[in-house]
Amino acid sequence: MPIKVLAFDGDDTLWHNESRFNVTQGELRELVRRHVPDADVDSQLFEVEMRNLGLYGYGVKAFTLSMLETAIQLTDGRIPATDLQVILGWGKRMLTAPTELLDGVEEALRNANERYSLLLITKGDLFDQESKLARSGLGDLFAGVEILSDKTAATYGSLLRRRGIETAEFVMVGNSLRSDIAPVVELGARAVHIPYHVTWNHEHLPDDALPTTGWHRLGGIGELGALLESIDQPPA
Amino acid sequence: MPIKVLAFDGDDTLWHNESRFNVTQGELRELVRRHVPDADVDSQLFEVEMRNLGLYGYGVKAFTLSMLETAIQLTDGRIPATDLQVILGWGKRMLTAPTELLDGVEEALRNANERYSLLLITKGDLFDQESKLARSGLGDLFAGVEILSDKTAATYGSLLRRRGIETAEFVMVGNSLRSDIAPVVELGARAVHIPYHVTWNHEHLPDDALPTTGWHRLGGIGELGALLESIDQPPA
Repeated sequence: MPIKVLAFDGDDTLWHNESRFNVTQGELRELVRRHVPDADVDSQLFEVEMRNLGLYGYGVKAFTLSMLETAIQLTDGRIPATDLQVILGWGKRMLTAPTELLDGVEEALRNANERYSLLLITKGDLFDQESKLARSGLGDLFAGVEILSDKTAATYGSLLRRRGIETAEFVMVGNSLRSDIAPVVELGARAVHIPYHVTWNHEHLPDDALPTTGWHRLGGIGELGALLESIDQPPA
Repeated sequence: MPIKVLAFDGDDTLWHNESRFNVTQGELRELVRRHVPDADVDSQLFEVEMRNLGLYGYGVKAFTLSMLETAIQLTDGRIPATDLQVILGWGKRMLTAPTELLDGVEEALRNANERYSLLLITKGDLFDQESKLARSGLGDLFAGVEILSDKTAATYGSLLRRRGIETAEFVMVGNSLRSDIAPVVELGARAVHIPYHVTWNHEHLPDDALPTTGWHRLGGIGELGALLESIDQPPA
């Protein structure tokens, strides 16, 4: 069946995201170590984020709340409120930072838009993601935008049903094996993995947890057009 | 045209919400006044929330971040981190509290479900709202759920277009004049106002800002069935 709908993840597929989190996490490390020089800030933050995931979900507000919790815990409550105010400011800075597109994104989307119906499928905070898309200037290229609270075979499946899309005509493009590739291949649709140079621990997936077929890996979004042409063959 | 789609707001229309915020706000007032006895906590919190609305949007995470900012500002940074940890805990408590349905909601929805296609249209935090709906046990009664980052004539209009719903066959039921009534009537659809006993300042609207026709006001959701029957007349 020919490809009809091409869906893209947003964060770290179309625009930089994880690197912004990493920069802020580095600042948190320094700030906390001024009070507790040997604190293992990264492990503690990750633990707090995982514990809060079911309550807060994904996104900058969740991250900010988890940073505050981590800083208070690691300093046994001795961190001054003015330092916590600095952390609140980092969250706001992340929410207002311009959306920085990855190389080649705009051209790849314009080309793809001529052949396929484009969807944006992201997870995270609704308000934050809508605002990023608006600031990206790419909004008009997408036939639809879907923001999921989590990306699983079940949430992809209900999205495809709701939009009347057949799995065989759907291709998902993203940087996360856990969120963009594995659940889509599990449904019987196809996926294209374009790795980003930093991946959040939570999105890691061991290689043997992945199916061996049904997905492809590219070095960059610039290679997408050629790949799609090669796999988009109507059945003989 | 007969009514086909009946849409409900969630917070303070189907389940209690603002009263939970009010309780927590009362606790914040006490906590801050232990440090600054004459602090005007309510005004300052409202000012901070309004300033952050464009960045954070609506919901418990946004509220928690604004409470922290308010407490730090009103104490000039002198509030101990352990008190801020208490505020973080209030946010988590709000996110895990059971969804408390308003009186008569379940029966009204079951009756309405026999005649109309039901939609839930809420604003706020995606993760928080999905979780509340799941905890409410009402999920199966709705043909669809829409979580908007804000409720305006434009966002309602694009929702109706996306779902192929005519304004004449759409009725919105909610507690907020600003979010559930005014924008819907502006579009030419009909709306039913069911006031809740507490309204967040931001949702207030002066009476003269409202159209005089196109909407109805009820004392409670138990009166909804009779109202709909009386206004749901196919054109003669």
